[in-house]
Amino acid sequence: MATLLDIGVSALINTLSAIVFLLAFALLRIQPINDRVYFPKWYVSGSRTSPRRSGNFVGKFVNLNARTYLTFLNWMPQALRMSEAEIISHAGLDSAAFLRIYVLGMKIFVPITIIALLVLIPVNLSNGTLSFLKKDLVMSNIDKLSLSNVRPKSVRFFFHIGLEYLFTVWTCLMLYKEYDYVASMRLKFLASQSRRPEQFTVVVQNVTHPPGKSISDSVDHYFQTNHPDQYLCHQGVYNANKFAKLVKKRDRLQNWLDYYQLKYKRHPNKRPTTKKGFSGLWGETVDSINYYGQQVKELERKMTLERQKTIRDPKFVLPVAFVSFKSRWGAAVCAQTQQSRNPTCWLTNWAPEPRDVYWRNLSIPFFSLRIRRLVISLLVFALVFFYMIPITFVQSLANLEGLVKVVPFLRPVIETKLIKSFLQGFLPGLALKIFLYILPAILMFMSKIEGYISLSMLERRTAAKYYFFMLVNVFLGSIVTGTAFQQLNAFLHQSPTQIPRTIGISIPMKATFFITYIMIDGWAGIASEILRLKPLIIFHLKNMFLVKTERDRDMAMDPPRIDFPETLPSLQLYYLLGLVYAVVTPILLPFILVFFSFAYLVYRHQIINVYNQKYESGAAFWPHVHTRIIAGLIISQLLLLGLLSTKKAANSTPFLVALPILTIAFHRYCKHRFEPAFRKFPLEEAMAKDIADRISEPDLNLRVYLEDAYLHPIFHSVEVDKEELMEVQVNEHETPIPDPITSLSNVYGYHPENPQHHTCELGAKP
Amino acid sequence: MATLLDIGVSALINTLSAIVFLLAFALLRIQPINDRVYFPKWYVSGSRTSPRRSGNFVGKFVNLNARTYLTFLNWMPQALRMSEAEIISHAGLDSAAFLRIYVLGMKIFVPITIIALLVLIPVNLSNGTLSFLKKDLVMSNIDKLSLSNVRPKSVRFFFHIGLEYLFTVWTCLMLYKEYDYVASMRLKFLASQSRRPEQFTVVVQNVTHPPGKSISDSVDHYFQTNHPDQYLCHQGVYNANKFAKLVKKRDRLQNWLDYYQLKYKRHPNKRPTTKKGFSGLWGETVDSINYYGQQVKELERKMTLERQKTIRDPKFVLPVAFVSFKSRWGAAVCAQTQQSRNPTCWLTNWAPEPRDVYWRNLSIPFFSLRIRRLVISLLVFALVFFYMIPITFVQSLANLEGLVKVVPFLRPVIETKLIKSFLQGFLPGLALKIFLYILPAILMFMSKIEGYISLSMLERRTAAKYYFFMLVNVFLGSIVTGTAFQQLNAFLHQSPTQIPRTIGISIPMKATFFITYIMIDGWAGIASEILRLKPLIIFHLKNMFLVKTERDRDMAMDPPRIDFPETLPSLQLYYLLGLVYAVVTPILLPFILVFFSFAYLVYRHQIINVYNQKYESGAAFWPHVHTRIIAGLIISQLLLLGLLSTKKAANSTPFLVALPILTIAFHRYCKHRFEPAFRKFPLEEAMAKDIADRISEPDLNLRVYLEDAYLHPIFHSVEVDKEELMEVQVNEHETPIPDPITSLSNVYGYHPENPQHHTCELGAKP
Repeated sequence: MATLLDIGVSALINTLSAIVFLLAFALLRIQPINDRVYFPKWYVSGSRTSPRRSGNFVGKFVNLNARTYLTFLNWMPQALRMSEAEIISHAGLDSAAFLRIYVLGMKIFVPITIIALLVLIPVNLSNGTLSFLKKDLVMSNIDKLSLSNVRPKSVRFFFHIGLEYLFTVWTCLMLYKEYDYVASMRLKFLASQSRRPEQFTVVVQNVTHPPGKSISDSVDHYFQTNHPDQYLCHQGVYNANKFAKLVKKRDRLQNWLDYYQLKYKRHPNKRPTTKKGFSGLWGETVDSINYYGQQVKELERKMTLERQKTIRDPKFVLPVAFVSFKSRWGAAVCAQTQQSRNPTCWLTNWAPEPRDVYWRNLSIPFFSLRIRRLVISLLVFALVFFYMIPITFVQSLANLEGLVKVVPFLRPVIETKLIKSFLQGFLPGLALKIFLYILPAILMFMSKIEGYISLSMLERRTAAKYYFFMLVNVFLGSIVTGTAFQQLNAFLHQSPTQIPRTIGISIPMKATFFITYIMIDGWAGIASEILRLKPLIIFHLKNMFLVKTERDRDMAMDPPRIDFPETLPSLQLYYLLGLVYAVVTPILLPFILVFFSFAYLVYRHQIINVYNQKYESGAAFWPHVHTRIIAGLIISQLLLLGLLSTKKAANSTPFLVALPILTIAFHRYCKHRFEPAFRKFPLEEAMAKDIADRISEPDLNLRVYLEDAYLHPIFHSVEVDKEELMEVQVNEHETPIPDPITSLSNVYGYHPENPQHHTCELGAKP
Repeated sequence: MATLLDIGVSALINTLSAIVFLLAFALLRIQPINDRVYFPKWYVSGSRTSPRRSGNFVGKFVNLNARTYLTFLNWMPQALRMSEAEIISHAGLDSAAFLRIYVLGMKIFVPITIIALLVLIPVNLSNGTLSFLKKDLVMSNIDKLSLSNVRPKSVRFFFHIGLEYLFTVWTCLMLYKEYDYVASMRLKFLASQSRRPEQFTVVVQNVTHPPGKSISDSVDHYFQTNHPDQYLCHQGVYNANKFAKLVKKRDRLQNWLDYYQLKYKRHPNKRPTTKKGFSGLWGETVDSINYYGQQVKELERKMTLERQKTIRDPKFVLPVAFVSFKSRWGAAVCAQTQQSRNPTCWLTNWAPEPRDVYWRNLSIPFFSLRIRRLVISLLVFALVFFYMIPITFVQSLANLEGLVKVVPFLRPVIETKLIKSFLQGFLPGLALKIFLYILPAILMFMSKIEGYISLSMLERRTAAKYYFFMLVNVFLGSIVTGTAFQQLNAFLHQSPTQIPRTIGISIPMKATFFITYIMIDGWAGIASEILRLKPLIIFHLKNMFLVKTERDRDMAMDPPRIDFPETLPSLQLYYLLGLVYAVVTPILLPFILVFFSFAYLVYRHQIINVYNQKYESGAAFWPHVHTRIIAGLIISQLLLLGLLSTKKAANSTPFLVALPILTIAFHRYCKHRFEPAFRKFPLEEAMAKDIADRISEPDLNLRVYLEDAYLHPIFHSVEVDKEELMEVQVNEHETPIPDPITSLSNVYGYHPENPQHHTCELGAKP
């Protein structure tokens, strides 16, 4: 058991490392050369195209303005200055709602911390007289401050039970208010949004079609029959594998062409040549620019043909369609109702926004989908509880003896004492480290197999899996000894009332561990998040070796987005820790508070300056956040119940039984009250927006607006690149600075401003 | 442990009692005097108005045709003769689907019985040689035929596991086919139905209205805004308590009037008189007919005023409305979508058919509803597990000593030895008997508090509660000793893997008990169902003392309906027993088979001749039936798992773990595949019916058709009775024979044939 002093030392170390990170960040961020690493969001949003710089050449790379060094912590007030409304318009609702999670954490835990510390520390210190308090606070084992210090059968447990009630009520109140606020924020956001394709569009899966009829005709006929007044048009989804191969080949050749053109530009006196054979190693020597230019042209001709074929030939059409309606009302109706008498066919759902569509999963048949979900849930269960088995196996292989056998010539090096002890400490953990590093990717892969059709949904599913993993392997795994599998086995052979006891009894003992965990993973981890060391290094490496044009530099910038699948679960773990320890070892709470407020600052800064979201789901993750905080609440209640029952507090324990039931009732109420706002779109809202639209733009041609919104991005990219290519060929000696919005559109095939930009003949339009 | 011989004796007794019931039934049913007891359905449907009779006076009461006595069992083939389509048109889809449950039982259990008996009996008989088989079959303890006879660690358990797989697959296959069949039956039924008000109507609960505006105006405005093309009209719901009181008083006075009129008719020379004071005991003496006639007239004038006031005055309007649309499509859209941005307001659902509405629950606010459901589920839990506590308390009071104290003058009688022993055997059980008798009523009362708005839903919820009660107290209660509360306590202190073992191990030992249970509750119970002894006695008592007119005689007939809340759960219990014992003690299966086929015959007869359904839900209970059979399947798998693990069949047990998982996956698939057909109404179907309607009746005035369909029946009843009254007054000396349909309509306020019949001015119509 650690004393408060030990924890103080650990806190000092972690605070220092966090401060070092922050100092490094403060110094690095004001260097113009790093501007694209620390402020990419401003480049993407187009308000900055080159770093702020001092006049001379050196000033291009290093900040020479001494005054700015004095105010090196000024990013903090800057981060706080932007209002919530500005954040929503700057970074989207997802980011703003993400920040609300931290605010909610502070709202919940500030009063809890104050009350818990004021009431419980005196109660828990066994002799309870204040004269000894000071000495105890410094010297005592941290357990002295926790519930385990209270003698069995004590009446003092009524303090703990009372506070658990108080904290539950407070948490629920805050959760309710926040859910209400976020739901209204979402509705306001959706209402204030300008016209967007997804507001009019529904994705229809499992389209059936009679043998003689094309899918496109069936869709047209079906919706003209069943939604005669509202149906506008539809966009088929094509199997573009063959076309995608051509695009890939074209991109490769284009790269070569660019390379040789650049080379020629630098040395205009020598035209580059190349060999026609395999990898340019042999064969006839030709002029490179001409050769690749011709090849690219040839390929693009082929691509145009293939594109026409893919879109026109019914056998490339998949049994899925994006069906658009004349009004938001029509789309809302279609998305929320059952269409066919066979509920596995003609399944309608709101279309994700075009950037958010995960194209590969669109055409999975219903039956296959059910099987996939079953298999994946079994696999996730196995992964969570049995992941140690393969890792132990790999570890047993990757030991020193095995290494020596594989690389015998390294034997002298390996057997050096220093290196040997390093390797022995390092190798066994390696397999586990690698596994934990790739775990989010594995979970994302699993979610993709499950067949969800939008990126946002995939991320939410991954987050759910990751939370389950953390709950079992980090939270329970730290409390109960043994692997998750052993725990599972033990729990299966214990009675349901015994399990909370087994866990509850070790809860107070692990407080020190979790305090350290919070400081390392929370404090130092967040500080390293703001430093962005890895992207910084990668950006400069790319800048040195790969970047040829400004466009390349923008590509190298690669602004990240909020990593929901990893961030949300770890956030929820902090909530769980806070709620569990609130009445057991309240001394843990200030550490969580520091985490919440520090992380809030950092993420606010990152959202304003760094992150660039790939999609906008309108805070669709909030119901999950709410549910998991409730789950944390219930876990904390059950564990307190278990802990108290080991304390023989038989008189007081029954009072706690009502809490989980009431909490579940509260959750069900909230679910009914708020969740529809996140899953459905009320007709009232849809109609109001339709009417407003009709008044402001009575003669809008919606069909043209929606025409290509849901065409697979690969088809868009061709058109755009073709034009760009022509542009490059026309003014060959000017380096065009592309608008970042446009270049993004290339990637995602999304053109909110000018959807009519690329008109193309589609075979399947009514 | 009972031998086969014991069981044979028990079977003989129960078969004999069943045969006695059947004989009595066969004799009683052909007596003309009982015609209205055994064939009320034909009277209700209007195809029979008086009993078939032989010519003379005696023939009016007793069947003198000797030939009919010879064919006294001919109701069986008669019951089978009607085809399913005829049953649907004769008695509705609910009844037809109810019979399918028995057919499904036979389909599932006939092959299972044959295979289980052929394979498992030889396997279970330990010596396994066929020479001893015959002797064993007669003499052996019934346990010899069950799984418990197999030695621990035997490889023979693979037979049981294999068969469990086979039976599960077979059951799932049958369930799937049946679900498919019933779902398509339902859709066909809905499609073939003629126009009905509920197809166009949606019930809207939790209507909000701004302070200055009436509810009726708000509803109009809301739906005219949000469903401008589809909205037709709406019907408010009124708080008619005051009006209902007047109706009650009028009915009482009307009864007196009728009584005196009849009296006068019998003795035309003496006009009856009455006293005006309290209970007719003192006060001025007046002519009865004139006095009551005047009073009734006066009251009816008041009622007309009150009626106008109730309907016109906005303060009597409840925040609920039945909103009707111009097409089925419009109603389907409104029922399936979310209307308001606050998901607790403007809640829309399909309106139940007018007969099916439970008016009292219509206006419960959303929040109160959530609280009610929570409280009731806690109460049901308490009722199921702790119901023995109050009963034991009452039992301890109601013993002989207590009785003697209350009625000391009966002491000599009570202390007679014979009577004393009878009372001692009888009294302790009395409280329990009374409780079990009123249990369905208690559960129905609880369901009503839960706030469901249709009778069919109330009955389904009651059935669910009753099934839970039976599962815990009949099934588990018989297997594990002790009260449900003791079991619960024991289970809470056992590990999840221990519970199936504890139960599993006593499963084979209880086979005899359940065989007896099936014979008493199933065989003899069903035979007594067809005899209808209680209604027979009540009918004749009423006929002797109360019946004055033919209309009274029809009222006394009181045709019952299928008692879903009790029948469905006990049926599902038989499924559970069959599935659990299929591999454990297969000798139980033939008894279940006999039950299913016998009950099928009896209920077919009853549905054709006796039952008259109060509402038609379109087999909406089928998903529940399906779910509970699946639950039975999973329980049987878990118990087999537990039983085998006590047999140390460690090699074979793991093979069973996959079964529950696969069964749950199957269930989830079925739920997605079929349940929407029972909960929603596909737009495709709605549109098809709309188009067909538009072609066949292009100039239908739907508004007139729907006008009063959803007016509270109490308002209808007045109009009808008023007219009837006039009719009575006009042709005073003729006894009118009312059409049973009309008299039913009076009760339920439902006029499918002539809804324009009673036009009335409503204040709140657009």
